[in-house]
Amino acid sequence: MATSATSSEYPASTHTPRYLTGDAAGIQEFLDKFDVFLFDCDGVLWSGDHLFPGTNETLEMLRRKGKQVVFVTNNSTKSRADYNKKLTALGIPSNTEEIFSSSYSASIYISRILSLPPNKRKVFVIGETGIEQELASENDIASGDASTLLDPEVGVVLVGLDFHINYFKLALAYHYVRRGAVFLATNIDSTLPNSGTLFPGAGSMSAPLIMMLGKEPTSLGKPNQAMMDAIEGKFRFDRSRACMVGDRANTDIRFGIEGRLGGTLGVLTGVSSKEEFVEGDVRPKVYLDRLADLLIVDQDR
Amino acid sequence: MATSATSSEYPASTHTPRYLTGDAAGIQEFLDKFDVFLFDCDGVLWSGDHLFPGTNETLEMLRRKGKQVVFVTNNSTKSRADYNKKLTALGIPSNTEEIFSSSYSASIYISRILSLPPNKRKVFVIGETGIEQELASENDIASGDASTLLDPEVGVVLVGLDFHINYFKLALAYHYVRRGAVFLATNIDSTLPNSGTLFPGAGSMSAPLIMMLGKEPTSLGKPNQAMMDAIEGKFRFDRSRACMVGDRANTDIRFGIEGRLGGTLGVLTGVSSKEEFVEGDVRPKVYLDRLADLLIVDQDR
Repeated sequence: MATSATSSEYPASTHTPRYLTGDAAGIQEFLDKFDVFLFDCDGVLWSGDHLFPGTNETLEMLRRKGKQVVFVTNNSTKSRADYNKKLTALGIPSNTEEIFSSSYSASIYISRILSLPPNKRKVFVIGETGIEQELASENDIASGDASTLLDPEVGVVLVGLDFHINYFKLALAYHYVRRGAVFLATNIDSTLPNSGTLFPGAGSMSAPLIMMLGKEPTSLGKPNQAMMDAIEGKFRFDRSRACMVGDRANTDIRFGIEGRLGGTLGVLTGVSSKEEFVEGDVRPKVYLDRLADLLIVDQDR
Repeated sequence: MATSATSSEYPASTHTPRYLTGDAAGIQEFLDKFDVFLFDCDGVLWSGDHLFPGTNETLEMLRRKGKQVVFVTNNSTKSRADYNKKLTALGIPSNTEEIFSSSYSASIYISRILSLPPNKRKVFVIGETGIEQELASENDIASGDASTLLDPEVGVVLVGLDFHINYFKLALAYHYVRRGAVFLATNIDSTLPNSGTLFPGAGSMSAPLIMMLGKEPTSLGKPNQAMMDAIEGKFRFDRSRACMVGDRANTDIRFGIEGRLGGTLGVLTGVSSKEEFVEGDVRPKVYLDRLADLLIVDQDR
């Protein structure tokens, strides 16, 4: 149901993905190819509030082998520190530096990639406090309070998931973009993941602005490559030695393919089915029933 | 900037509209052809809060000649009674029965045209109190309060302009349509008219739902013909003896042409230019510099 601004003109997959569950030699060969693993979280490491068995052991095994682990999430409501607390609460050892959220992605994009003139450096945010916390360290934030007059220094409008979206915020954002502000979105998922798709996502916050303006925002979340560029900017890894791990062909796996990573690993504990991985237009290079199937090679346990 | 769900496949106009300003014989001939005049309001009778000179005299002349006058507005925040107060405040003599708003159009459509089963008759409204007042006389309204659980009797979701739009209302509306409720909009204008297009319109309230659902609502406002059907249902006029008067080719004039009315009259006191009326794809049959130019035939003054 999620809308994607990523080009659908990318060539469709034609290869047959390799099924690695139970194949110790194949898994060993696979692991040896990569130094960095980028993880989608919900549907791969856990589902909702339920941690999958073996998640921690798998992450520990990868770290023990010297792999860099990065948690990549389109969640825009939390700062990296908040998201780290969520991982800790779920029982996953992690640190803030391993987390790459769409709010952080947006912060990096604005401060390091956009060239804003000195008098246009403020960011008007539609979103929760996590975005503002992440941005505040490197950027000026313009207030969205009803008490604020239009701020002439706003050069960016950034739209994420906002449980307090209102008419006034939409009118201000529209005004700023019409006056020349850059139109950004943390991500463009129309609904929240794993909510039974009951709740509007960040993309739905942008929808009124897209209709009024007649143009799309630049998205800083998966599957858009602006996020991959920001990840590479931070971790400075060799893309050919990196693997994207995810449960959704059309977002996670696409993100890895279009980012020209060396590997893509699909798992069947989330949204996409085996048929989608094996016969779809966007296929991972390898796939597993579940992430913990990697543990078959863990000789140190 | 407004988005229209009306088919753009309607054949483009090729005739040369007749210019009637100063042409007493032409105006007399024009007036004799019609019993009913449907008026767009802003840009025709007034602009913002400024009544055009001669508006009242023109309306009085038409009434004196026995013409039915109908004020047709996409305004969805006001009930007809409220809108009548607005006309009175502007100094225009009128009565509630002459007013046809998109909120009233929606009310008629729901109660008389939709066939809802007895246990699905409630309407969930995103909009201001004017819509609810208009609906309440003929329909049950479901509450949008945060205290309300999902109401199994909701069979319709109606979206209009709502200055109190919020996340919870959008989530409820999405849920109801996913469960089978009919998806309606009072109108689909993306921005408000005559606000310097600074403010989001009713269409922008529907935009998140359109993105989430992947489908458009049925619109009960101009230029959609569901509104013309509702007007005809109420006034029971001969379409060949009716004329639509408006300032916007693409909404007002299109509304009259696609409704197969006998006449369309464009005025140059609003959005569309002379060039648009004379050379555009959607052209009125006749046009005037201003509505009050009709007074040239008023022998009784």
